[in-house]
Amino acid sequence: MSVLIQFSIFPMDKGVSVSRYVARAARIIRDSGLRHEIGAMGTCIEGEWEAVIGVVTRCFEDLKKDCDRVYMSITADYRKQGDGRIQDKVKSVERELTQEQG
Amino acid sequence: MSVLIQFSIFPMDKGVSVSRYVARAARIIRDSGLRHEIGAMGTCIEGEWEAVIGVVTRCFEDLKKDCDRVYMSITADYRKQGDGRIQDKVKSVERELTQEQG
Amino acid sequence: MSVLIQFSIFPMDKGVSVSRYVARAARIIRDSGLRHEIGAMGTCIEGEWEAVIGVVTRCFEDLKKDCDRVYMSITADYRKQGDGRIQDKVKSVERELTQEQG
Amino acid sequence: MSVLIQFSIFPMDKGVSVSRYVARAARIIRDSGLRHEIGAMGTCIEGEWEAVIGVVTRCFEDLKKDCDRVYMSITADYRKQGDGRIQDKVKSVERELTQEQG
Repeated sequence: MSVLIQFSIFPMDKGVSVSRYVARAARIIRDSGLRHEIGAMGTCIEGEWEAVIGVVTRCFEDLKKDCDRVYMSITADYRKQGDGRIQDKVKSVERELTQEQG
Repeated sequence: MSVLIQFSIFPMDKGVSVSRYVARAARIIRDSGLRHEIGAMGTCIEGEWEAVIGVVTRCFEDLKKDCDRVYMSITADYRKQGDGRIQDKVKSVERELTQEQG
Repeated sequence: MSVLIQFSIFPMDKGVSVSRYVARAARIIRDSGLRHEIGAMGTCIEGEWEAVIGVVTRCFEDLKKDCDRVYMSITADYRKQGDGRIQDKVKSVERELTQEQG
Repeated sequence: MSVLIQFSIFPMDKGVSVSRYVARAARIIRDSGLRHEIGAMGTCIEGEWEAVIGVVTRCFEDLKKDCDRVYMSITADYRKQGDGRIQDKVKSVERELTQEQG
């Protein structure tokens, strides 16, 4: 019953380097206790929809404080009867890649 | 203080044609009363974050009823002191395109 | 055999207002002759994959000239035996919305 | 001068489980020799724009062979004078998270 989202957020008015703002969001995600995986182009978060969108909202509220323009990208993948999918999806692809070589 | 989102939602387990499901989401968006514009690749919705994400959540809850896998894509653009941006953003681009020809 | 893409591009190092850069991309899209529709959150373009990705590449090359950081979002929907889908997809949703009220 | 993309591709007409198709794309990405990182919601690829979009095109051509509807999502982040960013971006966020706790 869980949802997996790929989430990225950054200010558009703070110049080339936005890592300080991305780190603030990463902190909020980590403190949420939700299963997640930080990647180069965003963070993958797993949980109930209300919980994951709650974290997204907290990140947005935090950046809004001192950013005049904020961009967010969220892609969500819901699957009935799925859980622990952050690891499972990667493993299932890796398994197929390995089998092919056997 | 408004947010603009580009939103698309569809089931992944219902075969090639998903327009029946997309229409169900479009109805929920229309009934929300929020400013919106239906496009070929999704709907642009404008409003306060809580309101737009509330509509997204209602669309998702509706499709979850009879879909085993649902995909959503949301890109959000927040700008302090912006309002009526669905029309304004398109107009400002069109104005620049016209001036160039003058 | 056509592909529909939702495309947005903007610099991340030019401050709050990016409409001048968005207009440069819109001009390149318009001059491509491909079927397209400008929206508030991006432009929908229809054509063969090579043609649409060619336009995306030209927009990117143009912004790279004077931008140190550029962000692009592309979502693509390919459907075998589809054509004229920019109009058709919107019409099919609107038709379902109207029928319901009849 | 490199570009980082977050890329996901899947058929919309093959039912709930699409991992077999995702694995075909992952194989093409791996065989490209480009720096990449497989995640639960897509793969992050780094390289010159022509190279990364070439890989995306090969994945698309492959799935088109036996899929009647294919969906792709690509977000791209270009930064002048950046290289080895797949690792660097994650490290820079993790560094800020660790410092805060020190």
